[in-house]
Amino acid sequence: MAAQTVASTTDSTPGTQGAQDAGAPAPFGPAAALSCRECGARYPLSPVFACLECFGPLEVAYDLPTGDPEALRARIEAGPTNIWRYAPLLPVPADVTTKPNLNPGWTKLVKADNLARELGITGGLHVKDDSGNPTHSFKDRVVAIALEAARTFGLTTLSCSSTGNLAGAVGAAAARAGFRSCVFIPHDLEAGKVVMAAVYGGELVGIEGSYDDVNRFCSELIGDPIGEGWGFVNVNLRPYYGEGSKTLAYEIAEQLGWRLPDNLVIPIASGSQLTKIDKGLKELIALGLVEEKPYRIYGAQAEGCSPVSAAFKAGHDVVRPVKPDTIAKSLAIGNPADGPYVLDIARRTGGAVEDVDDEQIVDAIKLLARTEGIFAETAGGVTVGVLKKLIESGQLDPAAETVVLNTGDGLKTLDAVAPTTGPTATIRPTLAAFREAGLA
Amino acid sequence: MAAQTVASTTDSTPGTQGAQDAGAPAPFGPAAALSCRECGARYPLSPVFACLECFGPLEVAYDLPTGDPEALRARIEAGPTNIWRYAPLLPVPADVTTKPNLNPGWTKLVKADNLARELGITGGLHVKDDSGNPTHSFKDRVVAIALEAARTFGLTTLSCSSTGNLAGAVGAAAARAGFRSCVFIPHDLEAGKVVMAAVYGGELVGIEGSYDDVNRFCSELIGDPIGEGWGFVNVNLRPYYGEGSKTLAYEIAEQLGWRLPDNLVIPIASGSQLTKIDKGLKELIALGLVEEKPYRIYGAQAEGCSPVSAAFKAGHDVVRPVKPDTIAKSLAIGNPADGPYVLDIARRTGGAVEDVDDEQIVDAIKLLARTEGIFAETAGGVTVGVLKKLIESGQLDPAAETVVLNTGDGLKTLDAVAPTTGPTATIRPTLAAFREAGLA
Repeated sequence: MAAQTVASTTDSTPGTQGAQDAGAPAPFGPAAALSCRECGARYPLSPVFACLECFGPLEVAYDLPTGDPEALRARIEAGPTNIWRYAPLLPVPADVTTKPNLNPGWTKLVKADNLARELGITGGLHVKDDSGNPTHSFKDRVVAIALEAARTFGLTTLSCSSTGNLAGAVGAAAARAGFRSCVFIPHDLEAGKVVMAAVYGGELVGIEGSYDDVNRFCSELIGDPIGEGWGFVNVNLRPYYGEGSKTLAYEIAEQLGWRLPDNLVIPIASGSQLTKIDKGLKELIALGLVEEKPYRIYGAQAEGCSPVSAAFKAGHDVVRPVKPDTIAKSLAIGNPADGPYVLDIARRTGGAVEDVDDEQIVDAIKLLARTEGIFAETAGGVTVGVLKKLIESGQLDPAAETVVLNTGDGLKTLDAVAPTTGPTATIRPTLAAFREAGLA
Repeated sequence: MAAQTVASTTDSTPGTQGAQDAGAPAPFGPAAALSCRECGARYPLSPVFACLECFGPLEVAYDLPTGDPEALRARIEAGPTNIWRYAPLLPVPADVTTKPNLNPGWTKLVKADNLARELGITGGLHVKDDSGNPTHSFKDRVVAIALEAARTFGLTTLSCSSTGNLAGAVGAAAARAGFRSCVFIPHDLEAGKVVMAAVYGGELVGIEGSYDDVNRFCSELIGDPIGEGWGFVNVNLRPYYGEGSKTLAYEIAEQLGWRLPDNLVIPIASGSQLTKIDKGLKELIALGLVEEKPYRIYGAQAEGCSPVSAAFKAGHDVVRPVKPDTIAKSLAIGNPADGPYVLDIARRTGGAVEDVDDEQIVDAIKLLARTEGIFAETAGGVTVGVLKKLIESGQLDPAAETVVLNTGDGLKTLDAVAPTTGPTATIRPTLAAFREAGLA
């Protein structure tokens, strides 16, 4: 994709520490400002994340390209086979592809006919399989955008607190982009996850305490002079970070031939991904890239951490925090920041929020592997399990076209299936033994 | 890509068990016959793998498309972002994309400027990162072609012997394609690898014995009536299977903008992959898809299983088998079938074969992770480690453009780096502790 010059829509602000040459591409592309999701107050594009008026979360507001949707579609289709094909819709400069980045995205949308048959879906089923990303979870998408924001702001250390996928995504992205990284984890994380987080060679700091203690410590660090020049991808870079999830919506629509599915089943951790996919779908319609049609968004949680599902079923608008206890650790956020927005979207679109227990999660991981050859992380077991439950309970129309998300790779959560997954038989190396075992 | 009708070049033969309608696409596309690599004898396309005249290995011979290279390039570029974009050059029908398959390939070619700087390479360095395949190794490429051959031959069980990557690739591909699968492994395989092989729900049979015993048992099974209808991907389907590796050559050339690199560093297990990449490069030149230029092919082995490297250094034409002892288990074939062909290619192209020890493998895995954010399997440590050694010893010109292969994912061989990979520090959650640890 050739570098393009886009008229700057962004004022240079005190918060913008990066150099901004006259004539250089607008550092945030079509992004115009940060705006508060609660009160609508607008702020310049800078590394801040909460509204000064009402403490509401800030998100990126755009001056999106107007004009011929055909031309925009053609420009996207001529772009690279990663998220940067959607650069015209993201808070990144038009020359983003010239910077070192892991270039995630453009993962497979798998037509899942075998799984559809097993579930009784007749309207068509697709799995959006984000295990194909560079570090094998959807986190590469959000980190890629946060990294570019960090670069623009002149930040030099990329950081996060994490118990798994995010640590690897940040470590890998920082390594490739030449940033220092410093990732914080609870000191008692499983050995395998520590290796995945540490192998990229950045600083990895074990914190003596719970994940909550890790987060509290990170908040302290951001407020301290030590934290100057630090980009915590999911804290002070969160408005940019979150936008990475929009690319899931864009890819699904493009891979369906520029149209929307009827139903989407999306996992809920903080709830951010679900809300950003909805934002992306609405943008596609507004831009004329797809025809407007109703779609239903379904949220999926693990029973052991289902505060949003509980609120949905009880008809509440607020989410009561819980203490997580589930094998779906990548979804185990007991106090999901975007819970109320998720409830609103599920209700507005005619969807639902549902949950499945650990046994159902394991069964669903195996069902997806057995039918489509896709080995999902526990979060993928949650979405597939919830899809099954939604059909059985009549909440999701099997005659409609559905897309279900798998957001991570089964190799990362082997422990979940290990106790119940093994050889069919163990035999001596003879044909007689093979026959005796009933395998012939 | 629209299905296209291609004139059949393949006679219906007794070995061809699949139905072949008049007017249907040629079941093996441009493939014309099997031919013996030793004596040149030709055989109809069928599930056989050894020459009846001289017992030499059989490989696929083609009637490749002649005519305008620009038109062929355009046809490829308009194809899907997986190996099937090269269907006109593979032994598959033109409508292959309509069949259920894992659709591997089109993995990233990563411009590795950081690694190049560390190694002193000035001519450009790229990592072809095959960890991005569906089951995270290059085996998905070869299995995909074997699966389509099995479908055409009317075989119903997909099988292999394996100690790792191949088991998962076969299990996953069979699941998606609706084949029965039956995979044989040594009974004492590590627990994690058993889970990866078993999760796709096919038969997984532990054999009480060594990997050699497993192979012997499989040969017996093929010759027995029990084995009728079975496709052992790397035995009776081996001629088709091997062709999958050609796609690595095609992708590298296309991703470089339809041109060849100066050097390629490729791991050696059986040696098949290296010989097929060479075959693919020669085809690209013959078809006019790239300009003809010299290229050097370098083979990479682990010191603990380096029979080809030893023969190369000794100036021998034959390879003396060894008993493998290395952490690079996916390359641990002590008696590599294609060893002599590898020696010939390395010498003919002006390349070399080199090896590195286990400590160098681990160091190279970490070097690649730290510089490019790519976490490689031990086989990727072998190629990157060998690249380093080739430069240090003056065998590879750092001013030339080099492509190094990573054929698998680090998540599959966590044990290799685990003992030496961990947190930088473990601290209490206070800023004072952070400062004391020297991290601020």
